[in-house]
Amino acid sequence: MIYFLSDYSQGAHPKVMEALERTNMEHSNGYGVDEHCEHAAEIIKAMIGLDECQVYMMVGGTPCNVTTIAASLRPYEAVIALRTGHAYFHETGAVEATGHRIVAMDGINGKMTPEIIDKAWEEYEDEHTPLPKMVYISQPTECGSLYSKEEMTAIRNTCLEKNMFLYVDGARLGAALTAEENDLSIRELAQLCDAFYIGGTKNGALFGEALIITNREIDDHFRFMMKRQCSLLAKGRLIGVQFEALLEGGENSIYFEMAAHANEMAKIIRDELSSLGIEFYGVSQTNQVFPILPASIVTELKKEFAFYEWAPEKDGKISIRLVTAWGTKKEEVECLVQAIKQLYQR
Amino acid sequence: MIYFLSDYSQGAHPKVMEALERTNMEHSNGYGVDEHCEHAAEIIKAMIGLDECQVYMMVGGTPCNVTTIAASLRPYEAVIALRTGHAYFHETGAVEATGHRIVAMDGINGKMTPEIIDKAWEEYEDEHTPLPKMVYISQPTECGSLYSKEEMTAIRNTCLEKNMFLYVDGARLGAALTAEENDLSIRELAQLCDAFYIGGTKNGALFGEALIITNREIDDHFRFMMKRQCSLLAKGRLIGVQFEALLEGGENSIYFEMAAHANEMAKIIRDELSSLGIEFYGVSQTNQVFPILPASIVTELKKEFAFYEWAPEKDGKISIRLVTAWGTKKEEVECLVQAIKQLYQR
Amino acid sequence: MIYFLSDYSQGAHPKVMEALERTNMEHSNGYGVDEHCEHAAEIIKAMIGLDECQVYMMVGGTPCNVTTIAASLRPYEAVIALRTGHAYFHETGAVEATGHRIVAMDGINGKMTPEIIDKAWEEYEDEHTPLPKMVYISQPTECGSLYSKEEMTAIRNTCLEKNMFLYVDGARLGAALTAEENDLSIRELAQLCDAFYIGGTKNGALFGEALIITNREIDDHFRFMMKRQCSLLAKGRLIGVQFEALLEGGENSIYFEMAAHANEMAKIIRDELSSLGIEFYGVSQTNQVFPILPASIVTELKKEFAFYEWAPEKDGKISIRLVTAWGTKKEEVECLVQAIKQLYQR
Amino acid sequence: MIYFLSDYSQGAHPKVMEALERTNMEHSNGYGVDEHCEHAAEIIKAMIGLDECQVYMMVGGTPCNVTTIAASLRPYEAVIALRTGHAYFHETGAVEATGHRIVAMDGINGKMTPEIIDKAWEEYEDEHTPLPKMVYISQPTECGSLYSKEEMTAIRNTCLEKNMFLYVDGARLGAALTAEENDLSIRELAQLCDAFYIGGTKNGALFGEALIITNREIDDHFRFMMKRQCSLLAKGRLIGVQFEALLEGGENSIYFEMAAHANEMAKIIRDELSSLGIEFYGVSQTNQVFPILPASIVTELKKEFAFYEWAPEKDGKISIRLVTAWGTKKEEVECLVQAIKQLYQR
Repeated sequence: MIYFLSDYSQGAHPKVMEALERTNMEHSNGYGVDEHCEHAAEIIKAMIGLDECQVYMMVGGTPCNVTTIAASLRPYEAVIALRTGHAYFHETGAVEATGHRIVAMDGINGKMTPEIIDKAWEEYEDEHTPLPKMVYISQPTECGSLYSKEEMTAIRNTCLEKNMFLYVDGARLGAALTAEENDLSIRELAQLCDAFYIGGTKNGALFGEALIITNREIDDHFRFMMKRQCSLLAKGRLIGVQFEALLEGGENSIYFEMAAHANEMAKIIRDELSSLGIEFYGVSQTNQVFPILPASIVTELKKEFAFYEWAPEKDGKISIRLVTAWGTKKEEVECLVQAIKQLYQR
Repeated sequence: MIYFLSDYSQGAHPKVMEALERTNMEHSNGYGVDEHCEHAAEIIKAMIGLDECQVYMMVGGTPCNVTTIAASLRPYEAVIALRTGHAYFHETGAVEATGHRIVAMDGINGKMTPEIIDKAWEEYEDEHTPLPKMVYISQPTECGSLYSKEEMTAIRNTCLEKNMFLYVDGARLGAALTAEENDLSIRELAQLCDAFYIGGTKNGALFGEALIITNREIDDHFRFMMKRQCSLLAKGRLIGVQFEALLEGGENSIYFEMAAHANEMAKIIRDELSSLGIEFYGVSQTNQVFPILPASIVTELKKEFAFYEWAPEKDGKISIRLVTAWGTKKEEVECLVQAIKQLYQR
Repeated sequence: MIYFLSDYSQGAHPKVMEALERTNMEHSNGYGVDEHCEHAAEIIKAMIGLDECQVYMMVGGTPCNVTTIAASLRPYEAVIALRTGHAYFHETGAVEATGHRIVAMDGINGKMTPEIIDKAWEEYEDEHTPLPKMVYISQPTECGSLYSKEEMTAIRNTCLEKNMFLYVDGARLGAALTAEENDLSIRELAQLCDAFYIGGTKNGALFGEALIITNREIDDHFRFMMKRQCSLLAKGRLIGVQFEALLEGGENSIYFEMAAHANEMAKIIRDELSSLGIEFYGVSQTNQVFPILPASIVTELKKEFAFYEWAPEKDGKISIRLVTAWGTKKEEVECLVQAIKQLYQR
Repeated sequence: MIYFLSDYSQGAHPKVMEALERTNMEHSNGYGVDEHCEHAAEIIKAMIGLDECQVYMMVGGTPCNVTTIAASLRPYEAVIALRTGHAYFHETGAVEATGHRIVAMDGINGKMTPEIIDKAWEEYEDEHTPLPKMVYISQPTECGSLYSKEEMTAIRNTCLEKNMFLYVDGARLGAALTAEENDLSIRELAQLCDAFYIGGTKNGALFGEALIITNREIDDHFRFMMKRQCSLLAKGRLIGVQFEALLEGGENSIYFEMAAHANEMAKIIRDELSSLGIEFYGVSQTNQVFPILPASIVTELKKEFAFYEWAPEKDGKISIRLVTAWGTKKEEVECLVQAIKQLYQR
């Protein structure tokens, strides 16, 4: 079986494992107050060109989203997100569990726009309605698409006009930053939002994400919020150690190398399938590919390849999700492409 | 100033006031455990033809909605409602404050349908998504429209298929039950849902609603839930006394008389404005009328009449909401119609 | 049956009923934004000598407590209260339902002290513990005792030192203000706390309490909080109308007259029973009396008088709670005293 | 610096690291639905002698406690715990964040008793008070003490009488099971409670705990609860892999070996300090030692040894907490004992 199931189905990059081994018998303070977390934070601050931010080492993406949203909103405030946004679509109401509405909107190619934010605001009236205070988006989106610098800036400006925070879920941020069509650097991103995270789980960490809060208003007793939301790891240094390994070297680090590789593998699939005349669900620009295939071909493919069916499409076709990762081998990609070609030729 | 602002801008029907006066110096147990609440519950049980239900005297509609929803759902469960539904649209996230998502859907003429419920279920997948467990609708809807027996039965069947509760917000239930086009009796309604309330606030009570829970599964320690959700009134008997006065005589009670009057007043407005060629927002069948008027006429009308602007419409027109109530006088309605006629003739 | 069950077992003072009757057919804006609520607020502001506060008309005491606490605390913050405090002891975890801990402490004669606050703070450490941010007390206490000006000032100073809010539950505030031994005026009280309420339900209103927030920090979008917590009444003016009637005339108003009467009735009971050598649970100084009686006498008394048993005491005795109210008649008190005397003489 | 700071200051047992390395490049399903988690669950079921339970791989102890409590209680229900209990004392109100009260009680030597449970129930009355539904205890306790089989059985019986669940926090369960004075096997423990966890973080895992739910009533859609409470790890297999390594061999596994070693190291400290006439805070029977030392000696000790000060004691003394772990070397213990001896001889 060859896996295109997800970018978290394998463990960690060897250098991450090595760092965990090397530091294994060190004694550290618990709960993320240690030298490794501190050092990882310094690397990140240098990389994003901001000194005045806070970096928190988090166990996973849902804890990042939920803790930041709960820390940012007053009880009567809401967050605007897309129905395809991870915090709405795939976190079992964990945001609502903290007492806040997600105003759920339909996106365009998986993306938020100023117009969609305006539309969400139409629901706001006065004390009888929740007050929108934050916009939640993902870069890249859950559909693999990217916000351009211009698009992100437009969203940011809308947020500023409306006195809202902007939060960016970066579960696959590496894939965005190394995408061919990306024109939004991490430095620019950090300037354009109030908080975002650099995803480790889906790009070669064993687990863990680095949450960056650039707006002091959100950063109030954040460690209390982490503990209250069950997201303060006892051996916090584990995440610090991993991000040291992942990001050492900045743009030349294994973090960027792995993400670029995943994108490259996806591009091969996308290009090859396009040349077969295959169409795609949405416009993915990163390490996810959503080809629309006849059901019979999907059935055949499943015998040798692991992937998710995405959605039923017209004419009895099905879109599937193929995810490449740092561990995806070129042979595996070629094997997949070959298999699809053969199935099409039958 | 003549008022078409709301059906809760005045106090209570004189017979309600009289009942409160008459019982004022009685001593009762607190918190709704008294003879008046018991008697009111008996009247209601007889009226709906159900013996095995529970009746709770509630302070207002939001407490009814929120307490019932919070009592019905496990933490990971969600309620499906329309974006125009009161619990979504006008309660400041009070449902989410109890930790539950409202899956918010677009309705058709203010109404839910089995297809909309199916669409909401498309968001459900597995443990990564909230599990829909209840459908929330209003009879009549917030737009004044009505569910027919057939429509309500279809929704009910969908709920049963999907193992969901059906809850009906009856803030203006009197208006529904006495509407010309209504074919759904209160007995049938009681059979078709798991819980609903008979609204007092908007039909001649000083305040208060009677919540009926027909499904034992929901009725678990409900009084604990009421207290926890701040909706257990110390002098609970006040609501019992009012519902005794409102419902004594069943279908011949002042409750039905008042609602019928409000509908009749609305019908006059609707018919007269229709005859002027005026169009309406949605299809109200009860005591709310939503004519679409030129902005200039709205401005003029506001000098003498109190009402809410509803929504901007095309061609610079505005829909306004005119609400009639038990206290609306025929002269007031005629005065309004006359004024609009004159403004149209200028 | 003669009632000493509670101070909310009867309806409202005739002047309150009269005011509700008189205004019954007026049209008002909903949700407490009307002239009566405004006027009542002005009366209150004049009475407490503060112009810069906010007054909110609330349906009941639990909504006051819960809404204010939820509005005052950040998610990780806690409120310190006594185990006998109403918000801890008798509100079914409604505070915890908003996500906050009540740090529950044992009191001294029903009262909080700076030492108890210090002790509660011993539980605080760092991000692993909730941060105490508010002290909740009642004046008079649930045991009928009073805070002197000195005691209240000491608590206030402790709060200021520790950067905490002080909230005073005034469900029976009238009884405190008119107690013989009281030396704390409402003006002083208003200065010494950040929020408090003037209870109506237990002193001659049909229902409703007037919440006064003197600290702007708490008063952030409070009406949003009210709606979210199910405590914004549609016909809000009902509470305004009642407080106009209750407080018109300030210290000469029926509010003070009724409370003084209730205290006086309690004093007769207390004095007469003392003279029989009967001891009391705690040291009530207001309209609650807690005599400790032999179980056999309690059994006999119950045949003619309605009251609650409070707690088992030593030697097979029982403390009972006798509550007097504005509606308690002197004959009723005499009848009770006479009955106890006779039972003791047997 | 020699560390007696905590049992989670180092990484993982080499065999755990090796297992993570060995499986690193395997592809697995996410979120704990994989062969390693399944295999670890089988090992655990065999070890506790129960087939009909569920095993969930959790990221940490707080997620275990909070998710289980939130899954077990209806909104109006409460959990009884000691003020020294971790869920009360050191989790920043994470339980209350889910809307539930912890009824906080004083313990006896860190332990719960049937009498304490009875006392907590005195606060319960009716719908005005939360309904206690669960007892939370830790084995060993946060003070290092142990419940005997008799004590645990007595608590269990009280829970059964009162229709309450019993939950056991096993953050240091290994230390309990291998303690010299322990008479409660893991099989017996599993029979006596409704849910408990086997702590990994504090006994040689990199991170992670294995939660065992033996009562089906609690086990309702538990994975939904995990996701909602932010405690479902994407690469769930990581925890499964670790518990395979930790528990392979059952009672002869490294899990028991490591815990026994930690206890042994603690015993040396305890015996040696006792022989110096030093007294202890509480009666620890496991891998925590709480000697009471003169402040001056504490100051000196801190120069070479890392540990927490616990509490101020009388006569200017201080209790400190010394924690031993699987990684504690005998030389380190001897060095500590030697240092204290010398400081005492000065």
